[in-house]
Amino acid sequence: MIVVLHGGTGKEEMEEVEKRIKSFGYSVHRSRGENKTILGAIGYPRKEAQAVLEALPAVEKVVFISQPFKLAGRELQQEKTIFKVGDVEIGGPKIVLMAGPCAVEDKEVYLQAALEVKKGGAAIIRGGAFKPRTSPYSFQGLEEEGLKIMAEARELTGLPIITEVMDQHSVETVARYADILQVGTRNMQNFKLLQELGRLDKPVLIKRGMSATIEEWLMAAEYLLSSGNSRVILCERGIRTFETYTRNTLDISAVPIAKELSHLPVFVDPSHGTGKWKWVSPMSLAAVAAGADGLLVEVHPFPEQALCDGPQSLVPEKFAKMVTTLKGVAQAVGRAL
Amino acid sequence: MIVVLHGGTGKEEMEEVEKRIKSFGYSVHRSRGENKTILGAIGYPRKEAQAVLEALPAVEKVVFISQPFKLAGRELQQEKTIFKVGDVEIGGPKIVLMAGPCAVEDKEVYLQAALEVKKGGAAIIRGGAFKPRTSPYSFQGLEEEGLKIMAEARELTGLPIITEVMDQHSVETVARYADILQVGTRNMQNFKLLQELGRLDKPVLIKRGMSATIEEWLMAAEYLLSSGNSRVILCERGIRTFETYTRNTLDISAVPIAKELSHLPVFVDPSHGTGKWKWVSPMSLAAVAAGADGLLVEVHPFPEQALCDGPQSLVPEKFAKMVTTLKGVAQAVGRAL
Amino acid sequence: MIVVLHGGTGKEEMEEVEKRIKSFGYSVHRSRGENKTILGAIGYPRKEAQAVLEALPAVEKVVFISQPFKLAGRELQQEKTIFKVGDVEIGGPKIVLMAGPCAVEDKEVYLQAALEVKKGGAAIIRGGAFKPRTSPYSFQGLEEEGLKIMAEARELTGLPIITEVMDQHSVETVARYADILQVGTRNMQNFKLLQELGRLDKPVLIKRGMSATIEEWLMAAEYLLSSGNSRVILCERGIRTFETYTRNTLDISAVPIAKELSHLPVFVDPSHGTGKWKWVSPMSLAAVAAGADGLLVEVHPFPEQALCDGPQSLVPEKFAKMVTTLKGVAQAVGRAL
Amino acid sequence: MIVVLHGGTGKEEMEEVEKRIKSFGYSVHRSRGENKTILGAIGYPRKEAQAVLEALPAVEKVVFISQPFKLAGRELQQEKTIFKVGDVEIGGPKIVLMAGPCAVEDKEVYLQAALEVKKGGAAIIRGGAFKPRTSPYSFQGLEEEGLKIMAEARELTGLPIITEVMDQHSVETVARYADILQVGTRNMQNFKLLQELGRLDKPVLIKRGMSATIEEWLMAAEYLLSSGNSRVILCERGIRTFETYTRNTLDISAVPIAKELSHLPVFVDPSHGTGKWKWVSPMSLAAVAAGADGLLVEVHPFPEQALCDGPQSLVPEKFAKMVTTLKGVAQAVGRAL
Repeated sequence: MIVVLHGGTGKEEMEEVEKRIKSFGYSVHRSRGENKTILGAIGYPRKEAQAVLEALPAVEKVVFISQPFKLAGRELQQEKTIFKVGDVEIGGPKIVLMAGPCAVEDKEVYLQAALEVKKGGAAIIRGGAFKPRTSPYSFQGLEEEGLKIMAEARELTGLPIITEVMDQHSVETVARYADILQVGTRNMQNFKLLQELGRLDKPVLIKRGMSATIEEWLMAAEYLLSSGNSRVILCERGIRTFETYTRNTLDISAVPIAKELSHLPVFVDPSHGTGKWKWVSPMSLAAVAAGADGLLVEVHPFPEQALCDGPQSLVPEKFAKMVTTLKGVAQAVGRAL
Repeated sequence: MIVVLHGGTGKEEMEEVEKRIKSFGYSVHRSRGENKTILGAIGYPRKEAQAVLEALPAVEKVVFISQPFKLAGRELQQEKTIFKVGDVEIGGPKIVLMAGPCAVEDKEVYLQAALEVKKGGAAIIRGGAFKPRTSPYSFQGLEEEGLKIMAEARELTGLPIITEVMDQHSVETVARYADILQVGTRNMQNFKLLQELGRLDKPVLIKRGMSATIEEWLMAAEYLLSSGNSRVILCERGIRTFETYTRNTLDISAVPIAKELSHLPVFVDPSHGTGKWKWVSPMSLAAVAAGADGLLVEVHPFPEQALCDGPQSLVPEKFAKMVTTLKGVAQAVGRAL
Repeated sequence: MIVVLHGGTGKEEMEEVEKRIKSFGYSVHRSRGENKTILGAIGYPRKEAQAVLEALPAVEKVVFISQPFKLAGRELQQEKTIFKVGDVEIGGPKIVLMAGPCAVEDKEVYLQAALEVKKGGAAIIRGGAFKPRTSPYSFQGLEEEGLKIMAEARELTGLPIITEVMDQHSVETVARYADILQVGTRNMQNFKLLQELGRLDKPVLIKRGMSATIEEWLMAAEYLLSSGNSRVILCERGIRTFETYTRNTLDISAVPIAKELSHLPVFVDPSHGTGKWKWVSPMSLAAVAAGADGLLVEVHPFPEQALCDGPQSLVPEKFAKMVTTLKGVAQAVGRAL
Repeated sequence: MIVVLHGGTGKEEMEEVEKRIKSFGYSVHRSRGENKTILGAIGYPRKEAQAVLEALPAVEKVVFISQPFKLAGRELQQEKTIFKVGDVEIGGPKIVLMAGPCAVEDKEVYLQAALEVKKGGAAIIRGGAFKPRTSPYSFQGLEEEGLKIMAEARELTGLPIITEVMDQHSVETVARYADILQVGTRNMQNFKLLQELGRLDKPVLIKRGMSATIEEWLMAAEYLLSSGNSRVILCERGIRTFETYTRNTLDISAVPIAKELSHLPVFVDPSHGTGKWKWVSPMSLAAVAAGADGLLVEVHPFPEQALCDGPQSLVPEKFAKMVTTLKGVAQAVGRAL
């Protein structure tokens, strides 16, 4: 059961509501967002509580929710979540492209890439400063130095930037530079990291774990939402299957399903999803056709020089060409780009 | 190594070529199609054989092929395979829709469905007379009775029909009625059945096994091709993964990959791929956006009465509505419908 | 609902029972075994039918069954299925080893292998005459010639033989030679083949499909049982997962689960399950520790010469050594070998 | 290439060696363990470096390593890693049982459980104070309060304790109480956490990620080893597959493979691996038969009251009974218990 409080409810009033909720045998989970506070009543559902609680002046409404993802699901909130990052609207009618190199490696190259993806149609610049690598001996990212280069790219292009955070100790540092923080597939169930990011006042994009069910993915988003952060983007990036031609199997069906179950914007990463630049374009078209709200695409001016994920990076001309086709597909399904 | 013979090569000439191939230590696999004969030379590749064999008047060309799928791959044949079934061109610029109920259950209902899917935009009528069912106690199909009803639907609509064959003993019966024979996911590696179908003069649609790699799927097509049948359609229908929200995980990335590796037309079955009618439409759009040559869709006028796969069947109005959107997507990617 | 008839029930009496079953709205599935006949009443369960039917003299008992595998499950038959093949008891307290080369390729080698595995402790000789191969260009087996060699091995050793049948047209041929017929992983859901084998008077070993759930595997066994064959052996042989170090992931947990759900004997094939001879021995020990009733092991005197599956074949000395350790494990879990 | 230094090499000498390594174009990864220091030379292998470097007095040996897991693999260290935790030898001939409730929930119950598992044969007490839960609304553990109860259990039984750490901020706290720190399946690729644990002077048990390949699992161990911690235990706990009867598919074959590739001790968790207490016993027997060095088993005196993972917990009597059979299996494979 979820108890939604009116905006501007004071501390005392809230405690009074919590006391009443507990009197029915529930425990209370408090989730304080920017505009409203939601109290999760955890326990065996008791129908008679509704009338009692809705009689309290601080209570806007009481909702019984059957899905385990209380705040991420459509039961509590039917309308889509839409929010702005700089001038870019996420979750709205316009498809949003986030593009750029996998990792920030060289300043000149990165700034060139940023300019080119902007020209090609990207609305947000991506790049990795902290890289989760299977091997401790692989390039681990430029760390804060990389974040500074990304901030320069933002200056240069006027576009917001998105980058991954993988370390609880660097949450603050990353948040200082990034406009959107990204949680990688390997950290989707790093619950303590999620709770910290949930307390930030910055949007978070959460990738689906490579063997996470759609329900587990929404539950990971629930960790962010229930910690107070309502600006959450879901991102499908391929699941692990027996197939070996692709790096992962990009689960396009996760797009309509996540959108049906949740009000959150759903993005797709076709680069990690396939592992090969040749398949990025058809899978991007497929993602938008299936209803994705945006894409996260790796674009690198010199993929053969990349220290990380070169084989799956588009060159800027191919990216621009793809965007042209993408416009037609977006239009066909009632969206714009 | 593949030795392609000129059209109209006689028996004696062919045997002469085979003798020469064997003299290099190869064994010979003969694949006689309608228009040309191809001799597969199986064994350790010997470069010097090429000049010797190409000197023979019956030999058109000698091709060394590195992929295991010799005839299905793009190395031997670069241009796409296009063929006609009745008036319908498969593999050409136009997207082909095959639609109809999962199983033939009731004549009235089936004929009504056939008319409605034609009206909605289908070019070929689908239906099952022999049904592979997990349980021996489930409805197994009307068998020949069902085929007769399908033949009536063909009369009524003027459209070709496609149906599944799952039994070596009924190959002839099914071939007598059907315009295209379908091999189901559970029989993708029923090699003896494939060899029999490969000797037929009827097109065959082969579904990907639910845990088959793309390579194994192409190798299954190779069984058909190497037995002499060149009119083969590949059909992706979802693979088995850990996800439980969908019946299978429809692997849209298999579409661009199969089309890159093979010249054969590639179709997608979004009904079995998702298991729920709600997701059939977005996944159909995704499939076409990704390059599919056609779709195989379950449509049933009264899904709640279906003995088999009701929950994944579209009603005719929803099918017609989907086709409208599909036209826009097809156009955006340079196809028609 | 299952209606078990007394042994020796005549045709007329049986038809009388069937008529009464149908009067309750059921359809009837007749399963005639060697000793008793079982009538499956398919439809919505009606409790009041029990008393009426049990009053008929031909009816031994009426059982309501909730599992979908009516005959393979423990609800109808609690005690383990035990039967003899020649002198070998399958499903009894003694662990049964079936061993030999993957394919019959050369008579001398095969007969030598047969003698050696007998010496090493095998009770049944295995070998393949019809081989399901991913590629149409791979060695497909010696066919009937191979069966003849296997029959010679039986003569020589006095042990029963087991071999695979993969073709509906060769069921009779294989049944003429083999003591046990094997259904391979790719044919586990070749339902028409299963129904034919179900009508034979020969035991059948059915391998789990490489992506079959345990329930689907038991339902495949149900096809055999419901066609009248009660001498069925289940064989776990590895499932398809994302792991690439092994050819398949041998699902040892399927052993205790299948034994809990079903009364049928459960075997394990550690050779296909791992794909490498080095891991055959530890996995054989694990299988027996987990409760397997027997093993199906590939043993080849010259694995490096094998046309098929050499890398996963044990040499006879390693097989014999493994059997020694196996005896200790069998004893520890209350079995013998 | 790995450069092993003599014990007691001073800082200056080490820097001299590093300078020489770099002169060949390598970058250097320093891994300082308790007894010896290993310098990883990352880059293109140059054979001529070996003689030059081995001439330096500080260098014990230079090893070229082809596997990506340099320190975890058998190439650098052939003999098994054996170490002591309190009086308990890990990785030696004796099988080590770690047992106890999933989570610490109630002091009385936990202490009772600790006494009972000791009586039953456990050498180490397990329990969770910080619990990674799919839902933010589920019981998240007693945190430090739970650790204190575990410390009491150690007092009471004289046995070492193992518990999970899932939060970078609580590494120190957990390390203050625990004798072994456990990394859960969801954090196997939480690389920053691994690096922190690698710098501790406490043994770490690392569970295989539920969709991690064996190679990725060893690479995760490599993160621990290359950060300086050589007391690492690998623990297989089931992988995610399509099967739904079990919570996970316990990959017993990972045991012989991990032991072949690595010198580290390999444990198995049959409780999470199966999800049901009934299958814990057969899978424990299988694990030991396959060569496991130990088990991590959930035992709870009142499973029906457990807030977490009750269905997969053995009651103490069943645990004790299992240990009896386990002794026989251990003996059969040349181990003791």
